[in-house]
Amino acid sequence: MPPVRLLGLAGSLRKASVNRALLRAIGEVLPDDASLTIYDRMGDLPHFNSDLKDDPEPVTHWKQAIASADGLIIATPEFNYSVPGVMKNAIDWATRPPATSPLRRKPIGVVGASVGISGSMRAQYHLRQIFVYTDSPVLGQPEVIIPRSHERFDAAGNLTDESTRELLRAFGVAFVAWVRRFAPHV
Amino acid sequence: MPPVRLLGLAGSLRKASVNRALLRAIGEVLPDDASLTIYDRMGDLPHFNSDLKDDPEPVTHWKQAIASADGLIIATPEFNYSVPGVMKNAIDWATRPPATSPLRRKPIGVVGASVGISGSMRAQYHLRQIFVYTDSPVLGQPEVIIPRSHERFDAAGNLTDESTRELLRAFGVAFVAWVRRFAPHV
Amino acid sequence: MPPVRLLGLAGSLRKASVNRALLRAIGEVLPDDASLTIYDRMGDLPHFNSDLKDDPEPVTHWKQAIASADGLIIATPEFNYSVPGVMKNAIDWATRPPATSPLRRKPIGVVGASVGISGSMRAQYHLRQIFVYTDSPVLGQPEVIIPRSHERFDAAGNLTDESTRELLRAFGVAFVAWVRRFAPHV
Amino acid sequence: MPPVRLLGLAGSLRKASVNRALLRAIGEVLPDDASLTIYDRMGDLPHFNSDLKDDPEPVTHWKQAIASADGLIIATPEFNYSVPGVMKNAIDWATRPPATSPLRRKPIGVVGASVGISGSMRAQYHLRQIFVYTDSPVLGQPEVIIPRSHERFDAAGNLTDESTRELLRAFGVAFVAWVRRFAPHV
Repeated sequence: MPPVRLLGLAGSLRKASVNRALLRAIGEVLPDDASLTIYDRMGDLPHFNSDLKDDPEPVTHWKQAIASADGLIIATPEFNYSVPGVMKNAIDWATRPPATSPLRRKPIGVVGASVGISGSMRAQYHLRQIFVYTDSPVLGQPEVIIPRSHERFDAAGNLTDESTRELLRAFGVAFVAWVRRFAPHV
Repeated sequence: MPPVRLLGLAGSLRKASVNRALLRAIGEVLPDDASLTIYDRMGDLPHFNSDLKDDPEPVTHWKQAIASADGLIIATPEFNYSVPGVMKNAIDWATRPPATSPLRRKPIGVVGASVGISGSMRAQYHLRQIFVYTDSPVLGQPEVIIPRSHERFDAAGNLTDESTRELLRAFGVAFVAWVRRFAPHV
Repeated sequence: MPPVRLLGLAGSLRKASVNRALLRAIGEVLPDDASLTIYDRMGDLPHFNSDLKDDPEPVTHWKQAIASADGLIIATPEFNYSVPGVMKNAIDWATRPPATSPLRRKPIGVVGASVGISGSMRAQYHLRQIFVYTDSPVLGQPEVIIPRSHERFDAAGNLTDESTRELLRAFGVAFVAWVRRFAPHV
Repeated sequence: MPPVRLLGLAGSLRKASVNRALLRAIGEVLPDDASLTIYDRMGDLPHFNSDLKDDPEPVTHWKQAIASADGLIIATPEFNYSVPGVMKNAIDWATRPPATSPLRRKPIGVVGASVGISGSMRAQYHLRQIFVYTDSPVLGQPEVIIPRSHERFDAAGNLTDESTRELLRAFGVAFVAWVRRFAPHV
């Protein structure tokens, strides 16, 4: 079987984003037949505006990155009990026009961490509703909901909690199988 | 009683935004003791990034506009079954830092229109959850959920449907009373 | 391929339930390799109470009906912007104990109709969140959201609207393929 | 000022329900000008069925209990990432017919506890959406979201955690003020 190529998007622009650290930690425990690239140009996207008839270069780049991946992992913080605007803006760009959206039917994994008690779950359920629109199958269980992230990642963004690492390992196994279920070529 | 000053935010940057047209239509039928200003600089805001220690000028301007208003009306399109990223980005800026957020306890009215059958309701319920975080009281009924907006507004953005106008009038009366209930000085 | 056996649950106990009519209409346009049985004993279930150590007979009957089916179609009305309590009660029974729940990983289709403008979508998104818990894959598109159901079904519960019938046909094709994707034996 | 009379509804029928224990704990720390009665006949209600033209006696009793209270506190467990069916059934009865529903515009406080990490928040946001339908103002902050309830209540249902007690005290103060804001006679 050819390897599964995954793209990861972290929802925060902060340099020390714990959700980017979460993606790195997932990348380290993925099964051998899968690899993860973390997208790093979310901040280059302009505000979505459907008056623009041609995609600006960062939009083209972002859409191609999704199209080239077999599956997408979204690591979301929770801003005001929902998805960060800047990350939703990236999703908005990737869904236009709907007929050729690279998100359409793309297998997706939703994960997230927060310093509070919610572990970003409020944002994650909003994301799951969003991906009904794109007909993207989102992995159900195991959910990766990480509260009190400051107790599980050190200041350098290294995962220090073994039970979380086991959860990420189980997520990786389940998500790669999920992608293979929907992407027959891999 | 002093007049009630309302601020309106339309969630789309499109020139011909039907949600901006909706705000204008609300402004035309508000009770005499209230006025509505439509915010027009949402597109100037940068992407939210909590690494920025000082508010850029557009952020300061936006926060002051909210702080100066007695109540806020948000007219939301629905992008991918949720709130537009660009509008959520504006909300994200206005909530930081939480202790001094001008959204905190600000009375809010949520309205919206879409060309599809949802009338933006999927976005509106996400917004209502968001404003639990800011402890902002959001008016319950009447909800302004306008499906098939192209049948109710003409190409120039004029409201052409009388039953919708009656709904907006009822919303205006209810929302001004809602603001007065929470803002004792007006 | 062996035929796909589907179970349908309508969320209302009303004799003239439009959601039961919707299930019948789906049953009439399913692909030839699938059949639908409509469950008719939801009203026999007691209120869920985890103090009960042994399943009452109607609970056993309900769980076996789910276990015997390859996929489940839930046709939900919308009561107070969410799922009917009586239908949620049936779901609550079927999920206990979690390890042996017949809903676990069962492929599910969510559909619904209402006399109002929402077409039951508010209830449907709550259902989709509920089935994340059971790790049940829920079909994305096409969604079956039927507003103003009284204009599409006659008083006897017959579907009279051809565009709705085409939607149900497309849903049937997509859902049977969805079930086959997850149920290798069929 | 006359005292504020509150009604509490716990969403579980279990004898040792932690959400009933939560209501008792709230009752113990309410301000002196308020009292809480816990409703104990939720299990007597039949399944909601709009074919029934006359309210059965338990429905009449339940509606009168709501109508007699100045505000309602709902303590919800989380069953399958949403509201328990049996509790939603009680809400469904109380909203019919809409024009005379005792829930209409009734001030509401939503609280809840669970043994898991969500603290019932997934159920609480569904409830908040439900009460948009009834135009019932639901208190925003402080939210009472209690995860790992077994670490905060002992086996007899006594609250053993002081920081939770302080939260309940703050909730009580805020909710009684919320009720007085909407119920001018108290």
